[in-house]
Parts: sequence; structure tokens; C-alpha cells
Amino acid sequence: MLENSSRMELSELGEFGLIKHLTQFVEIKNESTIKGIGDDAAVLDYKNKQILVSTDMLVEGIHFDLSYVPLKHLGYKTVAVNLSDIYAMNGTPKQITVSIAVSNRFSTEALEDLYNGINMACIKYGVDLVGGDTSSSRSGLIISVTVLGEADKQNIVYRSGAQQNDLLCVSGDLGGAYMGLQLLEREKQIFIETPGIQPDLEGYDYILERQLKPEARKDIHDLLRLLEVKPTSMIDISDGLASEILHICEQSKTGCTLYEEKIPIDPQTFETARLFNLDPTVCALSGGEDYELLFTIAMSDFDKIKHNPDITVIGHITDQASGSNLVDKTGNVHKITAQGWDAFMKRND
Amino acid sequence: MLENSSRMELSELGEFGLIKHLTQFVEIKNESTIKGIGDDAAVLDYKNKQILVSTDMLVEGIHFDLSYVPLKHLGYKTVAVNLSDIYAMNGTPKQITVSIAVSNRFSTEALEDLYNGINMACIKYGVDLVGGDTSSSRSGLIISVTVLGEADKQNIVYRSGAQQNDLLCVSGDLGGAYMGLQLLEREKQIFIETPGIQPDLEGYDYILERQLKPEARKDIHDLLRLLEVKPTSMIDISDGLASEILHICEQSKTGCTLYEEKIPIDPQTFETARLFNLDPTVCALSGGEDYELLFTIAMSDFDKIKHNPDITVIGHITDQASGSNLVDKTGNVHKITAQGWDAFMKRND
Repeated sequence: MLENSSRMELSELGEFGLIKHLTQFVEIKNESTIKGIGDDAAVLDYKNKQILVSTDMLVEGIHFDLSYVPLKHLGYKTVAVNLSDIYAMNGTPKQITVSIAVSNRFSTEALEDLYNGINMACIKYGVDLVGGDTSSSRSGLIISVTVLGEADKQNIVYRSGAQQNDLLCVSGDLGGAYMGLQLLEREKQIFIETPGIQPDLEGYDYILERQLKPEARKDIHDLLRLLEVKPTSMIDISDGLASEILHICEQSKTGCTLYEEKIPIDPQTFETARLFNLDPTVCALSGGEDYELLFTIAMSDFDKIKHNPDITVIGHITDQASGSNLVDKTGNVHKITAQGWDAFMKRND
Repeated sequence: MLENSSRMELSELGEFGLIKHLTQFVEIKNESTIKGIGDDAAVLDYKNKQILVSTDMLVEGIHFDLSYVPLKHLGYKTVAVNLSDIYAMNGTPKQITVSIAVSNRFSTEALEDLYNGINMACIKYGVDLVGGDTSSSRSGLIISVTVLGEADKQNIVYRSGAQQNDLLCVSGDLGGAYMGLQLLEREKQIFIETPGIQPDLEGYDYILERQLKPEARKDIHDLLRLLEVKPTSMIDISDGLASEILHICEQSKTGCTLYEEKIPIDPQTFETARLFNLDPTVCALSGGEDYELLFTIAMSDFDKIKHNPDITVIGHITDQASGSNLVDKTGNVHKITAQGWDAFMKRND
């Protein structure tokens, strides 16, 4: 799409023209959005709610590779992963701002694709795009998103609330986004070595979608409300299960026991990991980008969630002195590290 | 400062370590900040106020040149110019998030300088740093700031409220930041041609400070409240007086008459412009980065502001059909353009 024949140069529009052009289809969906794009600041009104704010910056060549990520998907993913942070606080996202810096390698059409993806995610999750900034960069594309959400004070869930004996739960399954990335990287290498060859991605739909078009778990947020379960702590899995568990334990001043055999891994993730000579557990622990919710609940809430196929109990919270440990399938105990996989990598050596 | 002998590599700290390190001295100043850095999102509580949100992205080589901008000043300026947007809505800034992407050319000490400047501005303006993101870039430094502020609903001033016969006012003086930049660019060129030569910046303190360490006009915001003047429209001058006037006229569906002789220009700005063979009025109209407030007030409020040395009446609002015009010192009328200076450049040819 970067080679569109009717390419419109960014310089033809100018900054104000570009913002207007890219945001012309933005419609306000939330009552709390008093004024969106077009003034010095957006104006929001949350009445008696508390407000949640989260921000993320994505850099070409570091966080994404446009040689295999379509810009529309990138726009969608950028929004989804930011909303994920608000759901991880048990809140409801309401507004986003999006700032981009682009080099002149990009056409207006390319940025339209990006904004189409952004807009699709806004519609799907019911959030309003209320502001942003557009500027030049010397190399590549940089996207910075800030999301605002709301919650009743008593509903907000911090990372710090886990209590001893709480159950450690995770939504969905893990490691898929990482395996999707491995697959895309492999096909890219093949393409570099043999230009013109078609990528062989058939049969990998699930892990590709996990990597290219992840969703924020609004459904889990809604489900927990329906089941009347308020987690004691929660975080979304962006850096990998191990890293997120340590955040919860550190901030809650607890330890934990995690059971390898309980970690939910999709068969396609499992098979692909094996094919790539990777340990599926390692991928789940440290792969990252799954954007599932990791949370703790009181033991007394177990009956409410136990039959739900989208929630898996993977361990429990212990006292801080016990540390954060993983019990592997053979019953051996490993210390969980920030990288998540030191012990496991050794096991595979 | 990038060649500090005790240079600490960014990779030694890792992302979480770096965030902790850079934000270790952050103290929460506002009651509305319930939870700052350290969870998936910050938590804010504005009770019955409305919330203002503004965001900006600054890219090395586009918005700043580290060959003459110290990182501490850059940090300070980045915050100040964002706060300016909230004052331009007649609101009070309360929280900011700061995301940065940096190449490995930067040391931890360099980023400390940047954050020192950010922190200084936060203290000066009473805002809390509540979140952010830190990542790598392939080239240079990118900073993205989002600021949140509050206002009572009835106090918010939009760009769209100017009425026919309202007075067009500006705070401070204009063109200084632009002349500061010209001076720095000249000295940079001399340095490139004759390395080792010391820059000749003596006697240019005012315009250098306007460029390197601009302030947001909190004082004007406070003064207007004290004088019981609520502007009918307001915007801050980031792109130049001409461009901002056109924003107000377009959104208010009005025209305006601006008088060249009324535009406030500091003597140092004026003299430096002459020295550089530039028209001082052109610099004021299109130089940008002054971060003064441009606002309109009802004629009936004139008595309240007329003796204030920090506020200058530079024209008045007319009907839309009359267009946006500038009356020059000889009485000739020029159409104001987005670039602000087309007509004037011709005059100097």
C-alpha cells in the first residue's frame, strides 16, 4: 500500500489538513466526551467516576516491522493494547489520543490505512478519539497513544491487592502472539533470501491473529462483573506471564506458586513451538503480547468462575518469604525470574 | 553531557529499572492524583470538574536540535508547552504522562538531565507526573507528553466563542522565540565552519530564554481570574500569531482586524530581527513558539485589562464576510494567511 499509484504526498496537506483528513470520520460515542479534536485540549466530564490514564509508545523497527504488519492492523493493535491497560484496572476505556510522527516515505493513503485500523478499534470498543498530534520524523513511524477510562472508585483493581491464598487466574491462552511473531520472522527471512516466494502461512490463522490483531479482554471485564467477582489484583500480559506475576507479587508483597501444567496453551501454539524447537511453556511465560488478563481472586469466589472455559486457575498466592515459584510437570520447583525462562532455557540445553 | 566518563548504559537498567530510576523523585502534589506511576494506569479523581486533555509529540531533528538545546531545558520546555494548551482552555493542568523513545547514543545520565527538567517544570506548575513509557528508537530522541487538567464547566474557554466587536488581546510579546532560534542556528553554522570557536550569545539573554526555556502563561490565567475577565475565545501561540488568529476566526465564524503597530515586540527581538535582515512583524506573525495567550474579550471588559502591561489589545473581531485582515503601519490592508507572512515577505523583496 505504500506504492499506491495515486499517492498523495503528506506535504500537500500540511499538518492541520492532515489531522482534519485523517479524523474526518471520527464520531463521538460517549456522553463523557464534551469536546473532541479541534481545540487546545479535549474536554471530558466524568462526574463522580474516577479516571484512569495509560500511555504507550510504539516505534517502527522496535515494536513493529512494516514488512509483515499491515498498517491497518497496526492501528487496530495499537489501540487494543492500550485499552487492555484500562481493563486491567477493571475500568472502562472512554477516550484516546493518538500522536504520530512519520517520515516522508509514507503517503497519505498509508496513514489512512493506519487511521482506519485505529477507527475500527474505537468503534469496536466504544471509545472516542479526542486528540493527537501529527509531525515529521527523520526515520520511520512512531505512534504514541494515551487512553482515558473511568471506573467507580470501589471497582478499581490495582496490582497491589493480592492476598495470601488467593487464586492466580489467567484469561484465554498464552504464548500464541509470540509464536505468531516467530512464524512471521521466519517467512520474512525466507523472503529476503528468496525474493518473490510466497509466504507459507496456511494453517497458522490463530497464532497470526494473536500477533497481528490482538483484542483487549473487554469480555472478561464484563464477565467478571456479571459473575460478581472483583479480582483482588489484576494486570494485563504484555511482557509475558512471568514478568507480570512478579509485578503483582512485588506490589502486593506476596509470593506465589504457579503450576506449569495449568498454564493454558492453545494446540496451535504448542505444535508451532515444537516445530520451532521451542519449549511451549517458555513461550507462554516470557513470550509477551498476549494481552490476556492475569488476576487474583479470593478462594471464596472460586465457585463463580470454575466452569468458565475462558478463565484458568494457574496457581495461588503465598507469603512473600516463600518467593515466586513455578512447579514444573515433573514436580521440580523453579524460581520465577523477570525473564521468566532462565531455568527453562537451561532445562532445554 | 553525552560524554560523561561515568556513563551508565541504558541496557544495564532495563526498561522497568529505567522508569524507576528516572521517576524516583516524583512526588504527588495534587489531591486529584489517586495513583501515579506503577500500575497499568494512573487513577485520577476530578469530582465535579470537567477534564481537559492535550498531547504533543517532539522529535529530535524536527522540533529540537540537541547540538544547542541542553536536555534539561528540553525537558522543561516539553512540559511547559503542553501545559500552555490547558491554560489556553482557561483550565488548570494537574497531571502529565511522558513517553520517550531513545537510541543507545543516550546515556542514563543524559536521560536524568531530561527528567530533571521535566521534574522542575512539574514542581513550578504544580503538576504530577503520573505515567509514561520508555522504549528504544533506531535514531534520536522522541518525546510524547499528554497533559490532563481540570476546569469548572462554566469557566472553559473554547476557540469558537469570539463575537463581533470583541477585542483581540495577546499576552507578553511576540517573535522572541523565533529570533532566539535564528541566533542559535547562526552560531551552530559558525561552529560547524570553525570548530572550537565559542558561540557569541552575549546580550541576547531574553530571546534565548524565549526559545530555550519558555514558560506557560499560568500568571495570565490567574490574572484574568483575578480581574474577573472570562475571555470569549482563547488559544496559545505555538505556530505564530497569524495561524492562531485564523483558528479563532474559523472556529468562531468571524473575521478580524489586526493592527501591525499594536503587535507587542520586545526591543531585543526587534533589534535582532533587523540585524538578521528580517521584518520584526513577520517574526511576530509567523515565528511561533512564543506560547503567549491570544484571546478575545467583550468590549465591556476593556476597563478591567487596559492598564495591564502584560496584556495588549491588538485588534478586534469583525463579521466573517469581512475576512481576517491586517492593517500595516502605513494604513494598507493585507489579508492574513495561514503562513502569516506572504504579503509581508513581498513587501521586503
